[in-house]
Amino acid sequence: MESIIRIDMADLSVRVEESPRKYKLLGGRGLSATILNGEVSGTIHPLSSNNKLVVAPGLLAGTMAPSFGRISMGAKSPLTKTIKESNAGGTLAQKLDLLNIKALVIEGKPREKETYILFIDSTGAQIIPAPESSGLMNYELVAGLRKRYGEDIGVISIGPAGEEKMSASTIAVTDQDGRPSRHAARGGLGAVLGSKGIKAIIINAKGAEPVKIINRGLFKETVKDLIEIIKQDKGLQLTSKFGTPSVIKFTSKLGSMPSWNYHGGEVPNIANIFGDTISKINSSRGGKMHGCMPGCAVQCSIVFNGSDNKHLTSALEYETLAMLGTNLGIVNLDAIAQMDRLCDELGLDTIETGSAIAQFMEAGIIEFGDQERVIKILEDFKNGDYIGRIVGQGCAFTAHYLGLDRVPVSKGQAFPAHDPRACKAVGVTYSTSPMGADHTAGIDYNDSLSPEGKVMRSLDIQTLSAAIDTVGYCMLALPTNAPLIYDIMARLINARYGTALSKEDILNIGKNTIKEELSFNHSAGWTGIHNRLPDFMRTEKLPPHDVVFDVPQDEIDSIFD
Amino acid sequence: MESIIRIDMADLSVRVEESPRKYKLLGGRGLSATILNGEVSGTIHPLSSNNKLVVAPGLLAGTMAPSFGRISMGAKSPLTKTIKESNAGGTLAQKLDLLNIKALVIEGKPREKETYILFIDSTGAQIIPAPESSGLMNYELVAGLRKRYGEDIGVISIGPAGEEKMSASTIAVTDQDGRPSRHAARGGLGAVLGSKGIKAIIINAKGAEPVKIINRGLFKETVKDLIEIIKQDKGLQLTSKFGTPSVIKFTSKLGSMPSWNYHGGEVPNIANIFGDTISKINSSRGGKMHGCMPGCAVQCSIVFNGSDNKHLTSALEYETLAMLGTNLGIVNLDAIAQMDRLCDELGLDTIETGSAIAQFMEAGIIEFGDQERVIKILEDFKNGDYIGRIVGQGCAFTAHYLGLDRVPVSKGQAFPAHDPRACKAVGVTYSTSPMGADHTAGIDYNDSLSPEGKVMRSLDIQTLSAAIDTVGYCMLALPTNAPLIYDIMARLINARYGTALSKEDILNIGKNTIKEELSFNHSAGWTGIHNRLPDFMRTEKLPPHDVVFDVPQDEIDSIFD
Repeated sequence: MESIIRIDMADLSVRVEESPRKYKLLGGRGLSATILNGEVSGTIHPLSSNNKLVVAPGLLAGTMAPSFGRISMGAKSPLTKTIKESNAGGTLAQKLDLLNIKALVIEGKPREKETYILFIDSTGAQIIPAPESSGLMNYELVAGLRKRYGEDIGVISIGPAGEEKMSASTIAVTDQDGRPSRHAARGGLGAVLGSKGIKAIIINAKGAEPVKIINRGLFKETVKDLIEIIKQDKGLQLTSKFGTPSVIKFTSKLGSMPSWNYHGGEVPNIANIFGDTISKINSSRGGKMHGCMPGCAVQCSIVFNGSDNKHLTSALEYETLAMLGTNLGIVNLDAIAQMDRLCDELGLDTIETGSAIAQFMEAGIIEFGDQERVIKILEDFKNGDYIGRIVGQGCAFTAHYLGLDRVPVSKGQAFPAHDPRACKAVGVTYSTSPMGADHTAGIDYNDSLSPEGKVMRSLDIQTLSAAIDTVGYCMLALPTNAPLIYDIMARLINARYGTALSKEDILNIGKNTIKEELSFNHSAGWTGIHNRLPDFMRTEKLPPHDVVFDVPQDEIDSIFD
Repeated sequence: MESIIRIDMADLSVRVEESPRKYKLLGGRGLSATILNGEVSGTIHPLSSNNKLVVAPGLLAGTMAPSFGRISMGAKSPLTKTIKESNAGGTLAQKLDLLNIKALVIEGKPREKETYILFIDSTGAQIIPAPESSGLMNYELVAGLRKRYGEDIGVISIGPAGEEKMSASTIAVTDQDGRPSRHAARGGLGAVLGSKGIKAIIINAKGAEPVKIINRGLFKETVKDLIEIIKQDKGLQLTSKFGTPSVIKFTSKLGSMPSWNYHGGEVPNIANIFGDTISKINSSRGGKMHGCMPGCAVQCSIVFNGSDNKHLTSALEYETLAMLGTNLGIVNLDAIAQMDRLCDELGLDTIETGSAIAQFMEAGIIEFGDQERVIKILEDFKNGDYIGRIVGQGCAFTAHYLGLDRVPVSKGQAFPAHDPRACKAVGVTYSTSPMGADHTAGIDYNDSLSPEGKVMRSLDIQTLSAAIDTVGYCMLALPTNAPLIYDIMARLINARYGTALSKEDILNIGKNTIKEELSFNHSAGWTGIHNRLPDFMRTEKLPPHDVVFDVPQDEIDSIFD
């Protein structure tokens, strides 16, 4: 039977329920949205016992279809105060699906500050007191758990930032190397897990049966087609070769890669962090590319070695190179890699953290380009240094602390590394996504400087993103002709579940997911009036194309009509 | 001619406009709401150049009718993100009215951090660079200005907290002793003035003509009636004698005086701060009661001397004794008086500041009752100590910093010293007032533990409060039978302006003011969903009566229907 496991941290009880039939074709983000909208009041405090954290694999995770292993975390967000889903790669989704678990729902919270580990295997779930794990950094924590519970476990964990209930805190997921390098990073979901007193969730799928696939022929054929699409795609070829930093040559010229806290303009020596530069340096140090999920056909993760040829961080992504790099006037690759590692250790979102630090630079308290100071802030975080603790609450909080009014956030969440003035469909996504500024909610660079037609492009790609986040597909493996994936998803779901879904049915899964999210947000007091970017996006011209965000607001306002 | 003076800090220009006819019967809060709703977009950042600060006397200030000298400050609030009006006593309203100024509207902001003083007299307004005043505490600032510009000026000013654009910052107004002791304290309006680069506004009404009163007979007769009502009122007799602390005997027993960060329960030695105790001690030290406004018939301000028999603070109010006192487990009168002085110096709201410090106590970082530590936080504020700077951003911000989810705020603003569980009409006001938790928006203690009929009582008193804030009457001079004031206000306005307003017309002034405010809030994205108290008010029982806030939410939701 497919199960929902409910963990109530108020009385430390575990309840295994049969997953209702209505959840049959829901997974990941769609399932999370449906559970939250049905069970959590919009007006609760995100850190209160009334919030719930949903952990859900996609619909195909256990089949090992390539790039279908994303795992979704969802809750009311302490950062945005909206519904939130944030997903990651790694090895956990497969294991949950192999155990026939549709979702973990973590509810309630302990009366006192206590620390627990949740252990899940084929016999059920146990809540284990783990005071010794309190305060540990992610890498040390996970290494210890793997030593104790075996190397084939998967681990979901929070660092000190999540324990301290910070709005920029992440939930880490172990990758194929057993490192806590994949993060459900956005929206401060680590704080929700932290508020429930859970430091880590261990999943052991040893001895589980393979998942049942009803039409194996169709499954194999579709997987073959998908791999062929991926292999033939020029964009994905670049991603495979250089990882997400492959785009820096393009976005830094376009202006969409943020620099100097969104004032824009070239950062000298930007070539230091071009994809091919990183690849060359990393190869010479014995670093590698890998797939964070089993069976991935793209393998875009940069497993980065430091100058001592030892592992420094996984994975070094475009967003981090921008938000802890160019947007702070920093292009020193090793410094950024070190910051990335520190953020992964602490369980901090590199986007939100970088954007918050940029506010300190805007205020003149830290110099642009001062990489030593940024590293020191992250190093001092664990000792309770207040700058780290302010930054750990995110960009809007930091701007508030500093009394600044030029705040690159939407619904309280920092813009990712795509300046809306230079990629306007993404600006529409930032404005209107139920989750605030989130490139993973719908990114599109087509004809990106023009405001024409961008609302519809954003809606299309938001719908597609909601669909793939529900089925569990990785956006980094999306082909250039993204809608091709609708057909692939329909066929794979039909193969596994014996259904007869069409492409349109999958598109409707995306639509329904967004509807659930909007409904939750409505009950939390969010209206269309919040669907707008901060004013400076419409008034300050961005070099080199001297563009502002000029998609008509009334067109944006009608996006979900 | 009645004028509106517009000061644009972007280009340092002054524009004197004739006040439009439609503003004829608007003053104070009503005028401020109308200007803001008409001219300021709801979605702007409160610290941006697009916000406007309106300074407006009531409709009768210059007549010297007793207790009609309140001065209103209004803007979009950096604390609540709603429209905000906060008013104070002092001597400024009279002077503005004598100069025929209906309102100052301060717009724009300088490009760089610069500090100016605004000087207003019968010849107009001047913007004077005043870099030397930057960083000054309120008392030193005002003493210097009085030395330079003469003792009969009135001064509106901000302390370091306003300059640092903090959400708990106040705008100070000088009292009859020339001290910056009266504060438009709520909603962080000091930060709005600070964002515009204005440290102080000096009003010199020397040589101004007395205001014209059309029907002097009616005016005199009505003033006589008002004084008679005040003199006969048993409640006001107590207020006159002991100031606002006269209520502590009652509210501390009822439980509505917050203690131990809203956990409630007796604070040992509470009698230390009873009204009669304070009166006895203060008299023995040569302290006094005074009226902060010329011609006040209540004279409830405690001008408090320290143990050295020298002036320590004006005025020592109930709200301060609760929020910096009992709610922190502190009942040391001299310690609280010192905190009050420090808050007045820094320009910090004692309610918001106290409630924020209570969060540090809740987190266990500061001990309940540790008055030395609280004083030290306030003393260290000027040196940039981070705890002060966090506290200076208010209770919700501080709770966010600390990761706490039990946050006694409504629309982002800390509850004043009336626990909604023990005075339920006030709880309805906190829930529904366009300005968040604000006792001055509508306080009613009638049959206060019962939930019955409290929505209607709150609506009535909210309407009356909006009316008196528009006409400029002081709520501390409201008779026990408060609606009596409608008739007084109608007669005084008719006497001055030659109108023929009825009591109902004045009530409609109150209604229209709230309508303007709700309209602004709607455009800022506020919905009825935000009209609720934090969950713990409905779940945690408050001693000694073991009550929760139990006014039905659906009844509250329909308050403005």
